[in-house]
Amino acid sequence: MSDYVKDGAEIYRRSFATIRAETDLSGMPEDVARVAVRMVHACGMVDLVEDIAYSPGVAAAAHAALRAGAPILCDAMMVASGVTRKRLPADNPVICTLGDPRVPDLAARLGTTRSAAALELWRDKLDGAVVAVGNAPTALFRLLELVEEGAGRPAAVLGIPVGFIGAAESKQALADHPSALEHLVVHGRRGGSAMAAAAVNAIASEQE
Amino acid sequence: MSDYVKDGAEIYRRSFATIRAETDLSGMPEDVARVAVRMVHACGMVDLVEDIAYSPGVAAAAHAALRAGAPILCDAMMVASGVTRKRLPADNPVICTLGDPRVPDLAARLGTTRSAAALELWRDKLDGAVVAVGNAPTALFRLLELVEEGAGRPAAVLGIPVGFIGAAESKQALADHPSALEHLVVHGRRGGSAMAAAAVNAIASEQE
Repeated sequence: MSDYVKDGAEIYRRSFATIRAETDLSGMPEDVARVAVRMVHACGMVDLVEDIAYSPGVAAAAHAALRAGAPILCDAMMVASGVTRKRLPADNPVICTLGDPRVPDLAARLGTTRSAAALELWRDKLDGAVVAVGNAPTALFRLLELVEEGAGRPAAVLGIPVGFIGAAESKQALADHPSALEHLVVHGRRGGSAMAAAAVNAIASEQE
Repeated sequence: MSDYVKDGAEIYRRSFATIRAETDLSGMPEDVARVAVRMVHACGMVDLVEDIAYSPGVAAAAHAALRAGAPILCDAMMVASGVTRKRLPADNPVICTLGDPRVPDLAARLGTTRSAAALELWRDKLDGAVVAVGNAPTALFRLLELVEEGAGRPAAVLGIPVGFIGAAESKQALADHPSALEHLVVHGRRGGSAMAAAAVNAIASEQE
């Protein structure tokens, strides 16, 4: 068992080299390619790149917002947990309101999921924020509704919910949305908190 | 935007129905099939089932351990964060030692990653525990070394690290290990904290 690689920095270096060797990132802006590499690293699938879509300015817009102190709004605790705090350029708040005690009542009153209802508590934080959705399609749908209502315009939306009911549709809705939000999505059913956190971590710091 | 499904229970029901319709779980014991369904739900990929391997008693052994109060030892905070506490049958401790302040020094002294070094702090908890590795191959390799050294025998090991360097090898090593630990793995590069947490959540409670 003693012959495995134990040097963390070397593991990262080899991992990223493998990913870059097995993917074609030539169509992507370099800052988006760095995001894609880190997302592939988080899931072990090089073909993820084929499902990543984005507005060309998404990484720059999100990075600038973070440098200016913007909060990171996450739909799930796992996303918030996966954000590496020491990569953040301005000790940015990482916020997940899903566990707020008001959320179950809000969900019942609004007739929606807790994940979507939790976004009611984002209203005073949404404008200029970096949003990372890594779990619930309903949260991403609700986010677009809030933008339509004029509740605020996030600096960038990393829309990476996962699953079988509404995930693909919610990401398509973000990509096609008339508000033309800066965005990055993984089309289809794939997604999840690890990819969403990886995207935030890649945007937060240029260090691989 | 108003026509998406907003009923959380209905989303779960339709999701699990879709997964069961698109997968062939007929070769699996029913309790392992429930674990597989929840793991597929966490990643959005029905073909994950083809890479899941296990000892037939793994779900029963892990569930019995949890009912008896066993701790859940996680290699990453995201795994711990993804365990739904209200599903646990005995208010089980969910432990991740990666953030312990002793770990960086341990890693330097042992010449290994922090993820592997963090397992030094599992020694008094390992025997009879449920182990969930959802991130680091080095943690899974180190776990097998600890078992070889006689540090304890976990009740079950959910070995689901992800990535390009050592992930596949570490999972193969668990599946082939002479200790014949009760185990569940996802062969290959795929894995991650969401799948590992989903496996724990499925084992913890029969409620879908």
